[in-house]
Order: sequence, then C-alpha cells, then structure tokens
Amino acid sequence: MDTIRIGVVTASDRASAGIYEDLSGKAIVETMEEYLLNPFEILYRCVPDEQERIEEALKELCDREGAALVVTTGGTGPAPRDVTPEATEAVCDKILPGFGELMRAVSLNYVPTAILSRQTAGIRGKSLIINLPGKPKSIRECLDAVFPAVPYCIDLIGGPYIVTNEEVIRAFRPKGS
Amino acid sequence: MDTIRIGVVTASDRASAGIYEDLSGKAIVETMEEYLLNPFEILYRCVPDEQERIEEALKELCDREGAALVVTTGGTGPAPRDVTPEATEAVCDKILPGFGELMRAVSLNYVPTAILSRQTAGIRGKSLIINLPGKPKSIRECLDAVFPAVPYCIDLIGGPYIVTNEEVIRAFRPKGS
Amino acid sequence: MDTIRIGVVTASDRASAGIYEDLSGKAIVETMEEYLLNPFEILYRCVPDEQERIEEALKELCDREGAALVVTTGGTGPAPRDVTPEATEAVCDKILPGFGELMRAVSLNYVPTAILSRQTAGIRGKSLIINLPGKPKSIRECLDAVFPAVPYCIDLIGGPYIVTNEEVIRAFRPKGS
Repeated sequence: MDTIRIGVVTASDRASAGIYEDLSGKAIVETMEEYLLNPFEILYRCVPDEQERIEEALKELCDREGAALVVTTGGTGPAPRDVTPEATEAVCDKILPGFGELMRAVSLNYVPTAILSRQTAGIRGKSLIINLPGKPKSIRECLDAVFPAVPYCIDLIGGPYIVTNEEVIRAFRPKGS
Repeated sequence: MDTIRIGVVTASDRASAGIYEDLSGKAIVETMEEYLLNPFEILYRCVPDEQERIEEALKELCDREGAALVVTTGGTGPAPRDVTPEATEAVCDKILPGFGELMRAVSLNYVPTAILSRQTAGIRGKSLIINLPGKPKSIRECLDAVFPAVPYCIDLIGGPYIVTNEEVIRAFRPKGS
Repeated sequence: MDTIRIGVVTASDRASAGIYEDLSGKAIVETMEEYLLNPFEILYRCVPDEQERIEEALKELCDREGAALVVTTGGTGPAPRDVTPEATEAVCDKILPGFGELMRAVSLNYVPTAILSRQTAGIRGKSLIINLPGKPKSIRECLDAVFPAVPYCIDLIGGPYIVTNEEVIRAFRPKGS
C-alpha cells in the first residue's frame, strides 16, 4: 500500500504562541489513525491566524512535501482574524463547494451557529485541501461526513491509492472508475 | 441592555417610487419586535434596484450609523434588475455562504423556485448584513432559520450583546464562548 | 405554444474525439421529450474539455442561437481537465448557487462522492445555463430536482413560456406572478 503524506495545519494565534495545547491537530491525527489502513506520515504546521502564513504552510505542504491531503483546523468563522478560507481560496486551482455545504449541513444538526463557518475545500496540484472547524468534536463530525469521498477525489487528481478501515469509514469509488 | 441599531434596506423600484407600500420592510420590523428583548432602533432605507444605490445604503448604515445588523429585502432573483447580492458582496469583507444555503434549503420546503434566490450574507466591519427574500411570508421563514446564529455572530465581530425572547426565538452561544 | 430552443453541450475529450458515444447528450434530449409540451429544437454541441471551447459553445448558443436553456454535461469534477464550471462562470452575468447546492444534495442520496461535483448554473442575457453531471442516471436525478424552477426562471429573464407535462414534472410559478 502507498504511504500517504498528510498535512495538518492548525491556524491559531494562541496555539502557535504556545498559550494552549493544540487539541484539534491531535484530534485529526487520531481520526486518521482510525480511518486509514495505509501507512501514513503527518506533516504538522501550527501558524498564527495570518493569511500569508497559512498560504505559505499550504503551499509548502502541497508543492514541496507532496501531501496528498492537507487538512486545516481553525480560522473559519466571521471574526476579523479568521482567514483560513481566504488563504485556501488563494492557493487552490479549483474550489469544491460541496465540502463546505455538507460540513455546514451536518454541523447544523448539532448547533445553529454552524452557518457562521466559512469552511471550504479545494485542489492545489495533486493535493486536496479541506478546512475543518476548530473544535475536536466538530472536526470528527465533519470528517465522518466528507471522508467517504476523499479517496476517490485523490484518485482523480493523480494522488496515491487510499484504503480505509471499512469498519470505521467506507470510501466510495464509482463502479467502472 | 445594549440598544441595537438595525438597518433595513428595501431594494425595490416600485416601492422606492411610491407605487406600492413596502410590506416587506414592515414585516422585518414586526419580526424584530417579537424577537428582541433589547431596545432597538430601526434605520430604514428604500432604494431602487440599482447596485450603486444599494451599496451606498449598506455602507452608510454600517459605517456611519453603526448598525450591528443590516437586513435587506428584495432584488435577489435572476432578473436583470436583481442586484442586491452583487451590492452585498461588493461591500462585505467576508461572505458567509451558510446563510444563503440554509435560507434556500428552508424555502425549498415551501416552493421549488427557492433555488432561484441568490441571497447571501456577510460582514462589513462590525456589521452583519443579511439578504432576505422580497415576500413577507418568506422573510419570516428565513429569519426564523438563521436568527439563532445572529447574536453570537455579532458577538464575534465586536458588536452589542443581543438578548432574544426565548419563547419566540432561541439565540445560541457555544459554551465557554 | 412557443417553440423552445435548447442548447446541449457535452464536454468530453473522448466523446468529442469519437472514441465513445455521447449517451449523456441523448439522456438530456429524452428527458426534454418527456418534460415539455412545447415544441422544441435541440442545438447540440460536443466539445473537448477545454475552457475556451466550452465558453465559445455557450456564448454561441445563448447569443446567436437564442437558446432559452442551455444544459451542459461533463467536466464538473476535481480533475485538471474538468473545467465546465469555470467556463460557465466566465460567460454568466449572474450565478445561481441554489442549483448546484440542490443537485449536490440530491446526488448525495445516491453517492457520497456527490460533493466532488462543482456543477453550477447561471444567467447569460436571456438564457439559463445549467451544468449537469456526466452520467445519464445522475443527469435525470438532477433535472428532476431543479426543473420545477426552470420555467419561472426563464419567465423572469424574458424568455419563452414553457409548459411541462405535469404528469412527469410540475413547473412552479408563484401566485400573482
């Protein structure tokens, strides 16, 4: 099985300053351990909520590190320093609006403030970038919703072949694809 | 309790020419009277369906009048003179796609033509701008859907603290926020 | 009854090279035969997955051929040569995000990879352009979901009056419109 390189970008002024522990990044890594049967490597970046810094981290992970999947956490709300979606849109070749739509719809089952999230997803070269919320519980809800489409998406953009643990999450690939 | 300044912008060639009464603006005011426990002031503008005029009204209400919330009615459809979303996007720092998604999803429970609405929402400075439909009945359906997230959104952008009448509409603020 | 001119644009490298038959274009024509009571003419174009070629086909069908409705099939995914939404956004005066949202939501009932589709819709002059998926089965699911709003949309942009076979699909026009 292919080894999968996965970028994790935590956008947080406080976590990047060491003021609190990055529990969100941890939650993402734990979820990948449950989901994936492939061996994988985590490439971790923790940056302040600044668009340029987030863009740099995304570009480096996609272009130099060859991450097939890059997930961000934090910075998707309406506050002035929430700029993760802006950074994501700036570096992506294509935006996939269905990811944000589905993640907001799923989060709406838990909290009416889900509509405040501007999270999105997109393609840069051979990498899929997905914005996740900042809270560990919401991260898992969102990943459970969208991950079934991730392996096929990565097939389509020329990335490695991802195999999931079907008892935890079932990847879908259309017949004949 | 803080006094809330609320902008109401009716975009309508006919209402602004005095050809018919602006029932939509009235419906918004009545809804706010039911929703809010804070004292509030309505800042009302009725303009023709011209992008520049709508932009001017939005900017004035946000920047000079200090409205924490600005709601528009009308001008969100596919017709050539429907330009309220264009004006909104032009003046906003951030767009919040979840508002339009949820309002369309809710309206789809009533009419299949809900998909023709391009209504959106966004942030300008310390103001939240929300596009509502043109018809009083649809206005209420949309406000009932999105308003639970409005007070927390306004907290996040540095606006006044909104308290709702929980028997009518329940504002949601995440624990620990 | 008005004669309706309908553009069908198949974006496919293989179909345009004659490597396989364009079953998607056929599926669209068959669906229109079932839906419409008006007489109609199909204006068919099959082009490779190149943004410029798709834009040219769309512009010609809208501007010179006077198509009230133009539907595309193919090229809406995340792969590098999927550029139909880009072409559509480039030629449209207004984008109608509700079409893509609803089509993705409907397709999600069948396949979790529906979120990979970037299909959208928009207005160019007096024409409505709708992106459909590439597979005949998904085409029908999407058209069944959005078509009830199509006749009224075309009314609003000054196009011909469409009458549907209500036993197959029910067009909705708001009362008093």
